[in-house]
Amino acid sequence: MTDRWLEDYVVGEVQEFGPILVEEGDVVDFAQRFDAQPFHVDREAAGAGPLGGLIASGWHTVALMISLFATEYLSPVSSLPSPGADELRWFRPVRPGQSLVLRTTVAEARPSRSKPDRGTVRTRLEGLVSGEVVCSLVLTNLIRSRPRC
Amino acid sequence: MTDRWLEDYVVGEVQEFGPILVEEGDVVDFAQRFDAQPFHVDREAAGAGPLGGLIASGWHTVALMISLFATEYLSPVSSLPSPGADELRWFRPVRPGQSLVLRTTVAEARPSRSKPDRGTVRTRLEGLVSGEVVCSLVLTNLIRSRPRC
Repeated sequence: MTDRWLEDYVVGEVQEFGPILVEEGDVVDFAQRFDAQPFHVDREAAGAGPLGGLIASGWHTVALMISLFATEYLSPVSSLPSPGADELRWFRPVRPGQSLVLRTTVAEARPSRSKPDRGTVRTRLEGLVSGEVVCSLVLTNLIRSRPRC
Repeated sequence: MTDRWLEDYVVGEVQEFGPILVEEGDVVDFAQRFDAQPFHVDREAAGAGPLGGLIASGWHTVALMISLFATEYLSPVSSLPSPGADELRWFRPVRPGQSLVLRTTVAEARPSRSKPDRGTVRTRLEGLVSGEVVCSLVLTNLIRSRPRC
């Protein structure tokens, strides 16, 4: 999707993107760089512990969801840098070999009062594995309005 | 820091970690994988646009903050998988060449009522560039209590 403007985000619309395969090498690589806890990087320690094996860093799970969001939900013609996110929750471990689907729901979409060329879209993102929600957050984006001809 | 237990997180305690240099190659690599918007991956497009150059994905900035948090604030003896985070905000663009410092403030630390071997720690994380807050969030962690001898 290359052309999507503020007016194209309709409250209540639900979409799904993916799946992405969660690969063990990527799980370990990401965690070694950014979240080097034993249950993310050390297969043997993770296997011997209460989690019964490696789990992806929650930040990796979010990053995988964002990889779909950035390219398939946002549009380069209209997306401006995001001000933030809320209510990030990790409900279940995500493990190597699982497939992750992104479900988006438009929670809010409103024009800016001060800047008529843009508005705010708030989206609920849910990461799904086998139909169950493993991660969710609410992301706020600033999106340009469709130019008037 | 390898041994830090629930009892060692004291409400109000402030610490700083880092700095980490934000490298252009890493900014582009991360964004190509996870947040492929033009202002994160395309130096020429970013330079010609209103941001005046590449900016790091906000998720990359968080991941860099977490890289310090996971290894210097959390401890492998006590840290359990996190249930979530709140109030994630990106206040200013982070650019290649800048140095990022993590400041942590213990916001809450309390034993679990149902599981006496652990408790909840809530921490405010702030990412600082040249002393200014560029990003903040509140992260919840489950932390084991010090074993009784």
